[in-house]
Amino acid sequence: MKTSAACMACLTRQAEEAAKQVCDNDAAAEQLLKRVLREAAEFDLSLSPPEMAQLIHRVLRQHSACEDPYAEVKAQSAAMALSLAHRAKSLIVTADDAFEAALRFAIAGNIIDFGALPIAAAEQAPIILEQALAQPIDINMVQQLKAALSQAKRVLILADNVGETFFDKLLIEQLPPHLEVVYAVKASPVINDATVADTVDAGIAALAKVIDTGCDAPGTPLAQCSVSFKHYFDSAEVVIAKGMANYETLHDAEREIYFLTQIKCAVLAQHSPFAQGDWVIASNRSISSAISA
Amino acid sequence: MKTSAACMACLTRQAEEAAKQVCDNDAAAEQLLKRVLREAAEFDLSLSPPEMAQLIHRVLRQHSACEDPYAEVKAQSAAMALSLAHRAKSLIVTADDAFEAALRFAIAGNIIDFGALPIAAAEQAPIILEQALAQPIDINMVQQLKAALSQAKRVLILADNVGETFFDKLLIEQLPPHLEVVYAVKASPVINDATVADTVDAGIAALAKVIDTGCDAPGTPLAQCSVSFKHYFDSAEVVIAKGMANYETLHDAEREIYFLTQIKCAVLAQHSPFAQGDWVIASNRSISSAISA
Repeated sequence: MKTSAACMACLTRQAEEAAKQVCDNDAAAEQLLKRVLREAAEFDLSLSPPEMAQLIHRVLRQHSACEDPYAEVKAQSAAMALSLAHRAKSLIVTADDAFEAALRFAIAGNIIDFGALPIAAAEQAPIILEQALAQPIDINMVQQLKAALSQAKRVLILADNVGETFFDKLLIEQLPPHLEVVYAVKASPVINDATVADTVDAGIAALAKVIDTGCDAPGTPLAQCSVSFKHYFDSAEVVIAKGMANYETLHDAEREIYFLTQIKCAVLAQHSPFAQGDWVIASNRSISSAISA
Repeated sequence: MKTSAACMACLTRQAEEAAKQVCDNDAAAEQLLKRVLREAAEFDLSLSPPEMAQLIHRVLRQHSACEDPYAEVKAQSAAMALSLAHRAKSLIVTADDAFEAALRFAIAGNIIDFGALPIAAAEQAPIILEQALAQPIDINMVQQLKAALSQAKRVLILADNVGETFFDKLLIEQLPPHLEVVYAVKASPVINDATVADTVDAGIAALAKVIDTGCDAPGTPLAQCSVSFKHYFDSAEVVIAKGMANYETLHDAEREIYFLTQIKCAVLAQHSPFAQGDWVIASNRSISSAISA
């Protein structure tokens, strides 16, 4: 999926938020933003939106000499997610279908996304979480994923954002015990995407092998990923990809991938069979059949 | 009020929407948007947001060779407003205080704003209009404006957007009959701001003398306005300014001005005593006292 002209407003908003995080004063933030805009105006829109974000956030980090502009807001998200995940876990373990409930919370956690949404939108997380068990999702796909996991030896989960990781952990706890779980994060900070360091607080390492994609792009642009990552990507019987950036970079991948995401923007809604606001559990194969049907 | 870094995302969204209006295909719209971004990155952020928008929309019109990118959506807004104003009028004439009711609808109409809000937000207009009579507004200021109008010979109304004009007409109908009403629009098209041609459909000319500001900026940057406009601005006993751009360009004017607007963005909320979502009836003098109190 290529970047749309409509993505530029969202990328500009991200750049402004990031600039504010790293600059002491408004004038410095404005200068940094102008620098980013100047470079962004030259970028190739045939790149996917996550690859465009990758370039923009590289410019920001380079000119601000700050390796992780979102460090503070990521820490806040993690603290909030920790307390919300506690409540989610109690609802999962008492649910009729704990796996389905955990899947729902894994999609709910995708609201903590400073790429598609403003930082302030994370305040909505407690409300979104409360809706998790009632939100319409594709129950047939839940069963299909459950069946695929029961037959698999290894599942690769492509992580998304800090905070969301705490809900991914709840999903991992509900996976069949025989499964080897590999959890892939980003190789270095970009927006509020999780890195290896960010998985420690969420307690993922106790339940899964944590690897990284080998690159600093949001999502998973395969051409940029490491050989080691691709080994897991190719060999896992099931791949679960969290969030919009993974959908945008992998929807046309050759192998089957199960996507868990909220559709948080109009551009993606236009380029997918989903509507803005939808909670998605779908595989690229089921989507292809839906489109060609 | 100067442009904030946070305004750039909004201005980029405006530019993308305008580019889509004037281009036949996505590739052309992307090229036009990149051109605008390239120029916008060099602009002086000490300008007010409406003056920044003025420059951006000039670049857009120049490179697209389209004098009025919003012509089609303006026509759609006018058609929608015409039918909604019919309903509003019936509520105004049966209200206990018709002047207050008309003021409320004049503020409600301010939702049709393709500067602060996406074009699609205009779909909310019917819902917003239904809330007009119940929305909290400053009733003391309503009485203060009413008293000022009863003692004035001439009122100057600074118009804002096409569509909103239909509700301004309903307000003009409720002004004291002795008042000379002057209605100032933009000298040429910018975003969906009203020009002289746009007042014809709304039937303003039958009730008021229609003039223009002398410039193509949203709002009323006095340094750019014509001598003829300034004559009316200085000589009218009461000036009513509609919309955010007029607030942003005139809040520090020397003479008293009554503002009628919705606070549609976080940046203005931060630079004013109002909260995002507020419906405002306030004068710059009442605001100064509130701030210094």
